[in-house]
Amino acid sequence: MSRFEVDEASDEEIARERALYGPFTDAVRGLVDATIRTLADADAVREAQAEIEAITERLTKDQLPGSYGVKFRKADGKGRPWGNAVMGLRNPIAPPVDVRTVEPGRTVADFHLGAAYEGPPGLTHGGVVSLVLDQVLGHTVSSHGRPGMTGQLTISYRQGTPLGDLRAEGWVERSEGVKTWARGHILSPAGEVTAEAEGLFILPRWARNLPDRDVDHFS
Amino acid sequence: MSRFEVDEASDEEIARERALYGPFTDAVRGLVDATIRTLADADAVREAQAEIEAITERLTKDQLPGSYGVKFRKADGKGRPWGNAVMGLRNPIAPPVDVRTVEPGRTVADFHLGAAYEGPPGLTHGGVVSLVLDQVLGHTVSSHGRPGMTGQLTISYRQGTPLGDLRAEGWVERSEGVKTWARGHILSPAGEVTAEAEGLFILPRWARNLPDRDVDHFS
Repeated sequence: MSRFEVDEASDEEIARERALYGPFTDAVRGLVDATIRTLADADAVREAQAEIEAITERLTKDQLPGSYGVKFRKADGKGRPWGNAVMGLRNPIAPPVDVRTVEPGRTVADFHLGAAYEGPPGLTHGGVVSLVLDQVLGHTVSSHGRPGMTGQLTISYRQGTPLGDLRAEGWVERSEGVKTWARGHILSPAGEVTAEAEGLFILPRWARNLPDRDVDHFS
Repeated sequence: MSRFEVDEASDEEIARERALYGPFTDAVRGLVDATIRTLADADAVREAQAEIEAITERLTKDQLPGSYGVKFRKADGKGRPWGNAVMGLRNPIAPPVDVRTVEPGRTVADFHLGAAYEGPPGLTHGGVVSLVLDQVLGHTVSSHGRPGMTGQLTISYRQGTPLGDLRAEGWVERSEGVKTWARGHILSPAGEVTAEAEGLFILPRWARNLPDRDVDHFS
């Protein structure tokens, strides 16, 4: 079941894939936003639908049998979780949220949430807040050398999180064997904390012998 | 900031909109899946990208200035949160998860998660698990006549949640004034609980005077 694939991709090949799939995925993100917001008339919507179905038909003639999984490069164990729901290069659902390691066990992410992430009118869906914070905390424990799957996650919502430009921060509290505890929050453009997170992450048994444990995340 | 719009849409108009936007959004969902899984060559990907950008350009000529918000029908206060990130009819990011009320304060949702919702290889992203459970619990408290925004949400992950067909269930534990506590879980096709949720929901001040409080959710 685990779709860990180890390959020998060169830096050049990876750069070429990024240059191809990054802009392609961005184009689909743009279409997702337009799907929600368009005021085009019914005929125009139907025409767009037919064209999209034709594109999809071409793209799916030759495709992966299931989900993307994670590809690892044999040389350095570097992972490419390009299907990931939060930061996948090839996943239009991912905002994407690219988490940067400030120092081991401390991370920050600047990201933008558009119309597709709405819950209450004009605000980020409470579940999207937890989705982003799960990813940020997962990356935080990985950056600490202790990657893991989420064991428990608690989100405390302090105020509505606006849509638009946001920042998330994460930091490790402590770790003990295969368990690591991390905390984090989301900040509004005004610098106010809109939601806080507390998470326990556990290194799964099946991942304890991977080529490199310092992969981006498993969560 | 609140994008609550009250209108006089007839049943017929709403049915016509559903028949137009439902299949259109499904087509974009299909394209999202194809974007992740396609093995088409570089030229085919670039060609698809150019076509998608052209469609988006047409659709965005006339569009909502921001996110979709929620439209309410004046006659019965029935809400149409069609941009919602989890269940929005017009949101390709939404799986969608349609939560059914079994009885007031008890809900169930059968849904399908494809490649776009992946975290660990072959498994649902831990944050997507929380995203779905937030929505299910939010709907559960609404069905109880106590809608609210999420105050606190705790997810306990028992085992990896496979991608594919899943079920979620929610139930109200108790309520007190504007606060309601609910619990829920996700079940694998084998009927095993993969994750449990506990949530506190609070009716926000700005929503206490809406035409009808029994709307689908605010979370």
